[in-house]
Amino acid sequence: MNIITTVREMQEQMKSIRNAGKTIGFVPTMGYLHEGHLHLVEEAKKQNDVVVMSIFVNPLQFGPNEDFDRYPRDIEGDEKKAETAGVDYLFVPTVSEMYPSEASLNIIVTKRVNVLCGRKRPGHFDGVATVLTKLFHIVSPDRAYFGLKDAQQVAVVKSIVDDLNFPLEIVPVGIVREEDGLAKSSRNVYLTPEERKEAPALYRSLKKAEALIEEGELHTETIIKFISNELQEHTNGKIDYVEIYSYPQLEPIATINGTCIIAIAVQFSKARLIDNIIIEK
Amino acid sequence: MNIITTVREMQEQMKSIRNAGKTIGFVPTMGYLHEGHLHLVEEAKKQNDVVVMSIFVNPLQFGPNEDFDRYPRDIEGDEKKAETAGVDYLFVPTVSEMYPSEASLNIIVTKRVNVLCGRKRPGHFDGVATVLTKLFHIVSPDRAYFGLKDAQQVAVVKSIVDDLNFPLEIVPVGIVREEDGLAKSSRNVYLTPEERKEAPALYRSLKKAEALIEEGELHTETIIKFISNELQEHTNGKIDYVEIYSYPQLEPIATINGTCIIAIAVQFSKARLIDNIIIEK
Repeated sequence: MNIITTVREMQEQMKSIRNAGKTIGFVPTMGYLHEGHLHLVEEAKKQNDVVVMSIFVNPLQFGPNEDFDRYPRDIEGDEKKAETAGVDYLFVPTVSEMYPSEASLNIIVTKRVNVLCGRKRPGHFDGVATVLTKLFHIVSPDRAYFGLKDAQQVAVVKSIVDDLNFPLEIVPVGIVREEDGLAKSSRNVYLTPEERKEAPALYRSLKKAEALIEEGELHTETIIKFISNELQEHTNGKIDYVEIYSYPQLEPIATINGTCIIAIAVQFSKARLIDNIIIEK
Repeated sequence: MNIITTVREMQEQMKSIRNAGKTIGFVPTMGYLHEGHLHLVEEAKKQNDVVVMSIFVNPLQFGPNEDFDRYPRDIEGDEKKAETAGVDYLFVPTVSEMYPSEASLNIIVTKRVNVLCGRKRPGHFDGVATVLTKLFHIVSPDRAYFGLKDAQQVAVVKSIVDDLNFPLEIVPVGIVREEDGLAKSSRNVYLTPEERKEAPALYRSLKKAEALIEEGELHTETIIKFISNELQEHTNGKIDYVEIYSYPQLEPIATINGTCIIAIAVQFSKARLIDNIIIEK
């Protein structure tokens, strides 16, 4: 596995790969890799000649009161995991390599951002859009892989790629879960043992809601109430949101119809967990 | 010459060119081609295997009171000129091909925009940045060619390419002039015969200022006054601005030092002309 730290070297290497007629699959991450990330690599390996992973905790997508400094990091462990998973190129730039000077422009995402996690994170997706624009230009991938755990991010990134005509395909990949259903996340390490036992209730509530819909309940308000009750009954976490939208448009709907997303966020003592399911009706 | 009107076909063709290991030179234009544009093609042909030109009058970079509808168009004439100049691919998309739906994001240029022509054209460079980002993704050029007549645009585009790590080189190309010194422009056709005779005074005033600087005059205020007097004496146009900045930073300077630009804009009855020289001291 090649570990590269500069933009210039990365662009040169990627250019020679492309000139050799090989395809590039790209897995952008913020590191602290878990099976969710490695599953993205697995998918990328199936569809491309060369797999590139980036590890970069992007300060631009963290708000002033968010956990940028506290975000878990383990670069040595990550390198081993990436190599074992079969990553060919690992791009690990510093913050000053990615942002050497004050920017001359801002990218402002205006759609699909004021719902779900985006609502309380003003500017978050502007930071995501900016770093991904840069990374896409640095890596020049044919395909980029994103986990559906952050389904809002998938929808936003897809819309940016379409709007700006990026010559690449966004490949959404299903959520990887623990055996008890908890969605894998770098932030799960912050759960107390007690909370870890409660946490599978998030996914269980989504599955129960799905069953309810299959039985014919289509009113989103009723489904939202049902999930909220489930979460309050089975966890001590504080519900941040339970929301249902059309997908990938992320527009409010009163009745389940077409493809939609049910997404939840629960704040535990030190970890905020999110989960979702996408339903096609 | 291949004439292409869709994004999809353009991206496919460019991909096969790149996969064949060939380099792509790109000349983005708004059409109504003159020798200035063809000179860009000439330069692009020297440095690349394949030359792509786009013709697209970009509504996003025109203000509500600007001349989008009135901007001169001559697509048949342009096709002949492009072919004769040796363009390999001419990309001529419609507005709805480039902007099929309301955008999900805005690109806002924050530096180098509130001087020269940008000062009175709020949002102009946002539109330029957006369309070029799209065109760069559609064409995937190795090099893109811009005339130094719009030196502010060259500086802004260069900064965007650097900031967002576009994998391409911006090549600035010198101003092409008529025999009497008037900078070539699509808008010159709007000059009255009388104004056409006066118009070379723009360049003459810049060359006189350059001579003054060579003789030791370094105070920008004095030089600006000198040029303004020249223009008032020799034209009936209304001076829009006479400005001097560091280049490409476009920051105000009191004394000539390092590389700087002297730029002027004069409003005639129906045409607003601009010109500039870049001086290295």
